[in-house]
Amino acid sequence: MSLELVSGTKSFDGLQQQYRHWSKVLSCPMQFSIFLPQTADREPGHRYPVLYWLSGLTCTDENFSQKAGAQRMAAELGIVLVMPDTSPRGMDVADDPADDLGQGAGFYVNATQTPWKQHFQMYDYIVEELPLLIEANFPINQRRAISGHSMGGHGALMIGLRNPERYTSISAFSPICNPMACPWGEKALSAYLGADTTRWEEYDATVLVGRATLHRPLFISQGEEDEFLKQQLRPEALQMAADACGYPIRLERHTGYDHSYYFIASFIEAHLRFHADFLLRNRLESTLVHFTPDLLKPW
Amino acid sequence: MSLELVSGTKSFDGLQQQYRHWSKVLSCPMQFSIFLPQTADREPGHRYPVLYWLSGLTCTDENFSQKAGAQRMAAELGIVLVMPDTSPRGMDVADDPADDLGQGAGFYVNATQTPWKQHFQMYDYIVEELPLLIEANFPINQRRAISGHSMGGHGALMIGLRNPERYTSISAFSPICNPMACPWGEKALSAYLGADTTRWEEYDATVLVGRATLHRPLFISQGEEDEFLKQQLRPEALQMAADACGYPIRLERHTGYDHSYYFIASFIEAHLRFHADFLLRNRLESTLVHFTPDLLKPW
Repeated sequence: MSLELVSGTKSFDGLQQQYRHWSKVLSCPMQFSIFLPQTADREPGHRYPVLYWLSGLTCTDENFSQKAGAQRMAAELGIVLVMPDTSPRGMDVADDPADDLGQGAGFYVNATQTPWKQHFQMYDYIVEELPLLIEANFPINQRRAISGHSMGGHGALMIGLRNPERYTSISAFSPICNPMACPWGEKALSAYLGADTTRWEEYDATVLVGRATLHRPLFISQGEEDEFLKQQLRPEALQMAADACGYPIRLERHTGYDHSYYFIASFIEAHLRFHADFLLRNRLESTLVHFTPDLLKPW
Repeated sequence: MSLELVSGTKSFDGLQQQYRHWSKVLSCPMQFSIFLPQTADREPGHRYPVLYWLSGLTCTDENFSQKAGAQRMAAELGIVLVMPDTSPRGMDVADDPADDLGQGAGFYVNATQTPWKQHFQMYDYIVEELPLLIEANFPINQRRAISGHSMGGHGALMIGLRNPERYTSISAFSPICNPMACPWGEKALSAYLGADTTRWEEYDATVLVGRATLHRPLFISQGEEDEFLKQQLRPEALQMAADACGYPIRLERHTGYDHSYYFIASFIEAHLRFHADFLLRNRLESTLVHFTPDLLKPW
């Protein structure tokens, strides 16, 4: 797989770049953004861990890279940021006039229904194809963490819970915690997966948390003035399910904050420091290690 | 003059808000953004100094507030940020199809030519009307600093050099330093001010630096990979003029950075700390003090 550099500049002494590539999984060209800390003051051959960031409805690879201010801490901590697009795109890719379905609204699932199934395989793209591409082309190790916002928060929780062997730690801002039971999720999951709701369960963090056999550290930040909190996000459902099965999640609620990137920017440092605690342990090992039980305690 | 709150949320424990008001000077409604640090841990009645930020071509009040990541340091230092729009706007306001003239491209001048003169009085709006409005409605003192980017960097330099009694310190990112001698400036100044170039001199930092009788601290950051550096920005012209008259300016050039907000985000902390040095001296005095000569040395 080859990468085409679309744009690039320095940012906090590192590199902020956009690349384009052909996605076999999605059957269309895709674009992603990446931030690479500067390597001049690190040992030759140093390889970085990676935080994958999944964005929300209507977003591209640029929202987080332009508005979250994450590069400052990523540069300081030595973490690569990878920011994929939120769906397949293009003239020949199925779409819907609404903001919450189709292009810009892939929900990180593998669609099984017509017309979506031809291109909308975002789960496989994020979990399999994109990491292979990233790991083949950049100076990184195989330590991965995952985070996201809103629809991308759902994606991060769901993918992290289903693949604990692939991610050291999981976090989310204002995530859709229980997509089976909110209007955004019901609309998208029925369109992409059909009417059989047992298929939806594979993509619902509130269901998946009870099925997890390995508990990765999991951190959620939620604004109390978020206009989507009650109807769409439902962190209380996830909290109850986690409590019921003994999965220790850290859910922080913040008064006065809404659903915007002003909230993300205010707390991205806390999330990056959280992930760094796990991404940077035994940093010279080249393969993912199995964590000892003390990492799984509440902190 | 009354203010209408358009939107607001918390940001770094402070408030990020947008307001709308009628501008008498511009004869149209105007919108601005403001960041107010939180006051809970400060003494009752505390009043903050203000940094005015002027944005570049095509920008609104939102580009800096969303992309620069300035709120973090403004919150820490205790500085209010005021982010005006870049021109009058509306259906009945003159415009041009190009990006570099008309709405979104006011160049911070008082237009004298038809059809621009009816609304395009951005110099008076920024220097006189907006500060009166801000100082009447928010918990701030009369310590003001000014900064900006590109066209707004030109605005900050020009307004700061012409009004040293009103601003403690001046800075700019990638400013248009010599608008009389670049395509953007020649086009805008001839349209707004007419063919008599002696009128243009009042709005050209490279001319004004030689006329300054009071030297305020002045700091410029410039990216070396800026695509507009050679043709439009010309910091070397300003540096030569400043050297010729003994005005100590601090011009920092950074390899690898372009004209984007990634550059601003990388160095906004340095600019805010620079302004804080002057904004926060004798912070309990309610009126602007005359600076002692040691402030005017290069640093």
